Amino acid sequence: MSQSSTSASARRIHLGAIIQGPSGNMSAWRHPDAVADASINVRFVHELARQAEAAKFDLLFVADGLHINAKSIPHFLNRFEPLTLLSALASITERIGLVGTLSTSYSDPFTVARQFSSLDHLSDGRAGWNVVTSPLEGSAKNFSRDKHPEHALRYRIASEFLSVTKGLWDSWEDDAFVRDKARGVFFDPDKLHTLNHSGEFFSVAGPLNIGRSRQGRPVLFQAGASEDGKGVAAEHADAIYTRQETIPLAQAFYADVQKRLAAQGRAPDSLKVFQGISVIVADSADDAEARYQETARLVTIDNALDYLGRYFDHHDFAQYPLDAPFPDLGELGSNQFRSTTDAIKRDAYERGLSLREVALEAATPRPSFAGTPEQVADGLQAWVDARATDGFIVRGGTPTAFTDFATKVVPILQERGVYRRDYEGATLREHLGLDYPVNQFARTA
Amino acid sequence: MSQSSTSASARRIHLGAIIQGPSGNMSAWRHPDAVADASINVRFVHELARQAEAAKFDLLFVADGLHINAKSIPHFLNRFEPLTLLSALASITERIGLVGTLSTSYSDPFTVARQFSSLDHLSDGRAGWNVVTSPLEGSAKNFSRDKHPEHALRYRIASEFLSVTKGLWDSWEDDAFVRDKARGVFFDPDKLHTLNHSGEFFSVAGPLNIGRSRQGRPVLFQAGASEDGKGVAAEHADAIYTRQETIPLAQAFYADVQKRLAAQGRAPDSLKVFQGISVIVADSADDAEARYQETARLVTIDNALDYLGRYFDHHDFAQYPLDAPFPDLGELGSNQFRSTTDAIKRDAYERGLSLREVALEAATPRPSFAGTPEQVADGLQAWVDARATDGFIVRGGTPTAFTDFATKVVPILQERGVYRRDYEGATLREHLGLDYPVNQFARTA
Ligand SMILES: Cc1cc2nc3c(=O)[nH]c(=O)nc-3n(C[C@H](O)[C@H](O)[C@H](O)COP(=O)(O)O)c2cc1C
Ligand SMILES: Cc1cc2nc3c(=O)[nH]c(=O)nc-3n(C[C@H](O)[C@H](O)[C@H](O)COP(=O)(O)O)c2cc1C
Repeated sequence: MSQSSTSASARRIHLGAIIQGPSGNMSAWRHPDAVADASINVRFVHELARQAEAAKFDLLFVADGLHINAKSIPHFLNRFEPLTLLSALASITERIGLVGTLSTSYSDPFTVARQFSSLDHLSDGRAGWNVVTSPLEGSAKNFSRDKHPEHALRYRIASEFLSVTKGLWDSWEDDAFVRDKARGVFFDPDKLHTLNHSGEFFSVAGPLNIGRSRQGRPVLFQAGASEDGKGVAAEHADAIYTRQETIPLAQAFYADVQKRLAAQGRAPDSLKVFQGISVIVADSADDAEARYQETARLVTIDNALDYLGRYFDHHDFAQYPLDAPFPDLGELGSNQFRSTTDAIKRDAYERGLSLREVALEAATPRPSFAGTPEQVADGLQAWVDARATDGFIVRGGTPTAFTDFATKVVPILQERGVYRRDYEGATLREHLGLDYPVNQFARTA
Repeated sequence: MSQSSTSASARRIHLGAIIQGPSGNMSAWRHPDAVADASINVRFVHELARQAEAAKFDLLFVADGLHINAKSIPHFLNRFEPLTLLSALASITERIGLVGTLSTSYSDPFTVARQFSSLDHLSDGRAGWNVVTSPLEGSAKNFSRDKHPEHALRYRIASEFLSVTKGLWDSWEDDAFVRDKARGVFFDPDKLHTLNHSGEFFSVAGPLNIGRSRQGRPVLFQAGASEDGKGVAAEHADAIYTRQETIPLAQAFYADVQKRLAAQGRAPDSLKVFQGISVIVADSADDAEARYQETARLVTIDNALDYLGRYFDHHDFAQYPLDAPFPDLGELGSNQFRSTTDAIKRDAYERGLSLREVALEAATPRPSFAGTPEQVADGLQAWVDARATDGFIVRGGTPTAFTDFATKVVPILQERGVYRRDYEGATLREHLGLDYPVNQFARTA
């Protein structure tokens, strides 16, 4: 990573912090420094939220899933549900954004619109929803469905779901609630809009029983990187959460998103791209490598095969020889985490990797950025300056790495003038530099 | 109300506090002392929660509804969603129970089980779910349904829903999560139970991705007073939220519930009965009456007709002469708030009331207990001593009445030894004197 120069014109960086168990990898709970029950430990999540807010992060980010079995990642087995978790964090934080993952494949727009809007009010304009379509086949069996809808169908559902949700969020204009005690007028009936949506998948009358928030409505993240996923993002989202391996790949992704925005008639800065990254901060590159190895060693090969299997509909990889070339899986995986499974297969075949190598690479991923605080800061700046991304959702590569990042890397970014020293705005939308969304039903005079 | 004597053997009282807009009546937001936007005001709900906890209330209680229109009660138009609200309150309180209303007619057991369990973990064992089946026909149109399921069907769905939810809450035994760092054992597979429920309305495989809480599982309230409602309560609930007008009626209700418990093989004290009451605390009976009148006067006859209409599927009562006898409505209302609409009709016909009288009585109900702090305390004790109830869910009869109750009536009850001076237990289940529920799948050695 090259040293980037400090300049007044350097692009500003946006940062999110992942809340998802003890960070590192699937077996990091075994690390001596790890809080083993982090995924269900109230004190742990409070502390993490306070740390991220002290470092002026844009947002906290909670991932989610709707299906587990005995082979799932340990911190997925017993974890907080995102909306309740973020609502609890709303009360102990003041400015940081609160973004939670929720699936459009297994929920109702009326309930989802209400719950996120309620979080938005409870946090005074800090809520965000990471829209996913659920990659796990097994989800269907938890929701009284015969089968998991296939990939393209899931995104068609998602698109309509988001139209409905946005319509419900505009049930009341910003100044609909008059609350004139003397005249006895609680609201202005001209500013109440009943959606009456009737579409392919949903019929939702409305109005929603909650009004607009300080930021208008919750910020929408989208986290699917397939063609259909990017399509829904360009149509509806305020931000994308993605993972690209290199600057050139990320630049191509960024440019592709910009093109799609233009095609939708949207402004280029109306959607922010976040790269999901892991970091290890250390005294030297060697020290960072040692910390990586210490955490990686905790993952057994059996753990790694289970981990890999989860991406492929819980496929049993223990049936194959470990050191033979990665097996031919055909279409397996493409109805789940398609963008991820495509990348795993392509990489395995192109580089001629064995199953053992693929499984361990997947389960013990090398940190995206590792080294001294300066080296990590340089790396982040290089990506943002190259217009490969607008920001990062940060995950520690070891159980203590996030704290190191917040206390050692962020101050350098602040020093260099590319990261806020304090919150300028009040809402998540303001942190991200997004415009206040006008109510779609408001009549302009 | 007769003065009851202070005695060591007097029965203990349980208390819940309603969170639902500015208290009083549908138009109380107009009162000079009212916080007009109370139903969506974070500071207001934090303050109320802190007040109730300072007075050592057993629980906070949040009602809910899934359908509004322009004629709905003002504080229903724009209000927090219960689960997110209670999660936010979990962070600013330490001991008080957190009970929220959620409908089994328009939700999925997997999501409901997760969210309530997550609230239970976030609050360290203080969550409760008030199970309702949704009285409002219009709910169907917000949830992509053709029609609202009829009354008996709703309760059949509720019964299966609760079986599934309880099964999911027992996915993991109490000591399933071993988290042995040295051996790399996160959980004991023998203590993981996959539900594989397949019933009339739901097919839910499980396991749930969250374990048992400090109180085992959330406390179940039930709020339907019809025969079917009491049936589901006796089968599944830990508590009933009901409203009876007199001690004899409440005694009969209590005895009926006890009989149903026995028929289910349940212990008599395994279900607590709460009466929903409103209170006005004043310097004298006359002062209480003046306060009642001041709040009642805020309700116009048009407001009152809308209010009455909501119980009868938004029936338009403005079409009838105001001072003629209450109209014959046939079966109207019996698929919604059946126990309430039956009572309204019976009362109107028996007493020969006019529409105006019925509407105003409904919309400006007299407080259940009004008078000096001592008089109110006497009234509560009389009900509990007569075994008409185990406790009360308290709503202020004016915007300031709850504060008066918490600061003036509760100390008297404490003085008399019938109310806790401090929390003895940590969990809601402990506050209510309910046994810890054994995991239904646990093998006894
Ligand atoms: C960076 C990233 C994060 C994701 N986070 C989640 C998540 O928390 N929960 C989830 O169910 N799916 C998550 N997904 C999966 C996607 O939302 C999507 O369901 C899946 O990847 C298939 O869509 P795709 O082929 O468009 O990527 C994530 C995907 C990416 C790329
Ligand atoms: C005291 C009391 C409180 C209630 N609270 C709610 C509520 O908050 N939300 C709701 O949808 N229904 C509520 N209900 C309605 C019932 O749950 C039920 O749906 C309706 O009354 C029809 O059932 P029933 O005939 O068994 O009473 C309440 C009922 C009673 C008696």
